[in-house]
Amino acid sequence: MTLMSKVQPLEFLKETKKQIDAYIFDFLPSGHRHPEVHQFYEMMLDYPLRAGKGLRPAICLLICEAFGGNPRDAFNTAAALELLQNWALIHDDIEDGSDLRRGEPCLHQKHGIPIAINVGDGLHCKMWEMLNRNADLLGYELAFKIASEFSQLSNHVVEGQHIELSWVDSNRWDLTEADYWTMCIKKTASYTCTTPCRVGALIAGASKNEMDLFVDMGMNLGVAFQIQDDVLNLIGEEKVYGKEIGGDISEGKRTLILIHLLNTCSQTEANRVIEIMNQRRAEKHPDEIQEVLDLMKHYGSIQYARQRAQTLAQQAYTQFNQTFSYLPASQAKDIFLHLIHFFIEREY
Amino acid sequence: MTLMSKVQPLEFLKETKKQIDAYIFDFLPSGHRHPEVHQFYEMMLDYPLRAGKGLRPAICLLICEAFGGNPRDAFNTAAALELLQNWALIHDDIEDGSDLRRGEPCLHQKHGIPIAINVGDGLHCKMWEMLNRNADLLGYELAFKIASEFSQLSNHVVEGQHIELSWVDSNRWDLTEADYWTMCIKKTASYTCTTPCRVGALIAGASKNEMDLFVDMGMNLGVAFQIQDDVLNLIGEEKVYGKEIGGDISEGKRTLILIHLLNTCSQTEANRVIEIMNQRRAEKHPDEIQEVLDLMKHYGSIQYARQRAQTLAQQAYTQFNQTFSYLPASQAKDIFLHLIHFFIEREY
Repeated sequence: MTLMSKVQPLEFLKETKKQIDAYIFDFLPSGHRHPEVHQFYEMMLDYPLRAGKGLRPAICLLICEAFGGNPRDAFNTAAALELLQNWALIHDDIEDGSDLRRGEPCLHQKHGIPIAINVGDGLHCKMWEMLNRNADLLGYELAFKIASEFSQLSNHVVEGQHIELSWVDSNRWDLTEADYWTMCIKKTASYTCTTPCRVGALIAGASKNEMDLFVDMGMNLGVAFQIQDDVLNLIGEEKVYGKEIGGDISEGKRTLILIHLLNTCSQTEANRVIEIMNQRRAEKHPDEIQEVLDLMKHYGSIQYARQRAQTLAQQAYTQFNQTFSYLPASQAKDIFLHLIHFFIEREY
Repeated sequence: MTLMSKVQPLEFLKETKKQIDAYIFDFLPSGHRHPEVHQFYEMMLDYPLRAGKGLRPAICLLICEAFGGNPRDAFNTAAALELLQNWALIHDDIEDGSDLRRGEPCLHQKHGIPIAINVGDGLHCKMWEMLNRNADLLGYELAFKIASEFSQLSNHVVEGQHIELSWVDSNRWDLTEADYWTMCIKKTASYTCTTPCRVGALIAGASKNEMDLFVDMGMNLGVAFQIQDDVLNLIGEEKVYGKEIGGDISEGKRTLILIHLLNTCSQTEANRVIEIMNQRRAEKHPDEIQEVLDLMKHYGSIQYARQRAQTLAQQAYTQFNQTFSYLPASQAKDIFLHLIHFFIEREY
């Protein structure tokens, strides 16, 4: 396989997603004579079957090819990134009390929390099993280096998740942009951008120094991605976006937008916003969600976040271009640069 | 280190537990300048710090030594078994709605379900990170074989857990001893006995054929262990056992004891038992739990389970002695044989 055919970024995303999905469906077990185990296998397929973007595997394959590697060698690893995304989303949806994921009820809404936790654990195990496959494909040493990247990544993801959950648990609202930044780098940026780039380069034979050059760029681009996600959550089209619009306000999520609002509005308004945000999800009236949204619009918080995301993505674009100017021109490199724009222009 | 000093089985368990615990505490992160991450590290230490039995690592080290290996080589793997136990228990306690674990409130009772799910995920990641350490200690090839054993094991554990959870979810009570057996082999026997034996032997250089000889014995002993656990849950001393006595009845758990009762008592009694078992935990009156317990005693269900556990453990004892009669006499072998008795004689 080569990525060098004439394709547009969005077509490339779609094509990659199709290939990685097929690879994952071939890997995940699909039938068992024991009816309960059979049902478990079906549940493990639920989130992977939903229409995700497939951004992370695409980044991994593109960077692998841009560094002169064969993207086929990165297939297990790209699929493992997608499996990480899926187990983490199942647990994240429970932890946040979410309703919708990719346009359908969340797994725990369909089957209850106990079963959904365990299905997430099942996919988590499958992620490591997928990574074990690298031993045959790439040899033991490289396979181990990739597994170590995933170990570091997983540590970041759970730590970032804990920071966010503990803000909710301890009713913390006195947050700064720096707090958001720390949480977001750990929770989102590492697995959305930094690690997909690093492992793609690693598989292509990049040095440790080259891999480390992705840290700053990955942070900027990954945080830009999350901010855009938070913006879409407030002003997106539910059918396109796939989650409930305003869901972050229902869930009391500490987004950059909310942090900007609380640090910009009057004390009385801030108290009212916190009062609404602190209510349990079911107790929040749509009018109250609208009230918070109106204040966000009034104080330019959404606009601020959009600009922040654009600046970060622009920085990432420049960093990539300058840092890796020595890489030969390739369509993979071109598509990756175009993807950076997609990160902040997307509507889903 | 050698296990060949003159020690009794219980002393050996205690000593091994101390050493593996120290190894795990040295491995798990213990401090971070970011207060929320610091708190997360403390929560990951919570279950490992509680007084577990350390049976699984002990089995792994003993079998390694009985096969002529150096137990020091099995330390990472024994510690990974203990980490598996801990992440699985955190999630299991949420899934079962349990109150107590090892004499203290369950993690989700202390910090809420969202944070506890994520702490379990954190320890799950740490299990694989611990297994990655085997590359330096044992070389890539052996490290990968061990990781593959853990992949298979993890698949069994989540599948067994799903079988049990789906019985609860679909209100199934028409279960046979064969149903219990299938669930219990997957959920408990694999990680309590079969895999600890297999990886211990693998590290000592045993062949695949030799490892496969542990499958039958591990099933028998592992199921015996679980049955004894279910017996203790009903008639143990809460302070010694560390969980609430009768908790399995509160949780509506399908134990061998309950399955025996339902298949032995009258239809009217069975209907009444199912009615009580189906109630939500909080709605169950202590008198109703006692009612079920009295019926179990009346129909000899607890006695039946005890005998079943004894027969299974005796089979395991004979199987081990016969199958591995070619292993030279060693104290490790002796202690392992003594441990088999502990499996069904223990009170905690």
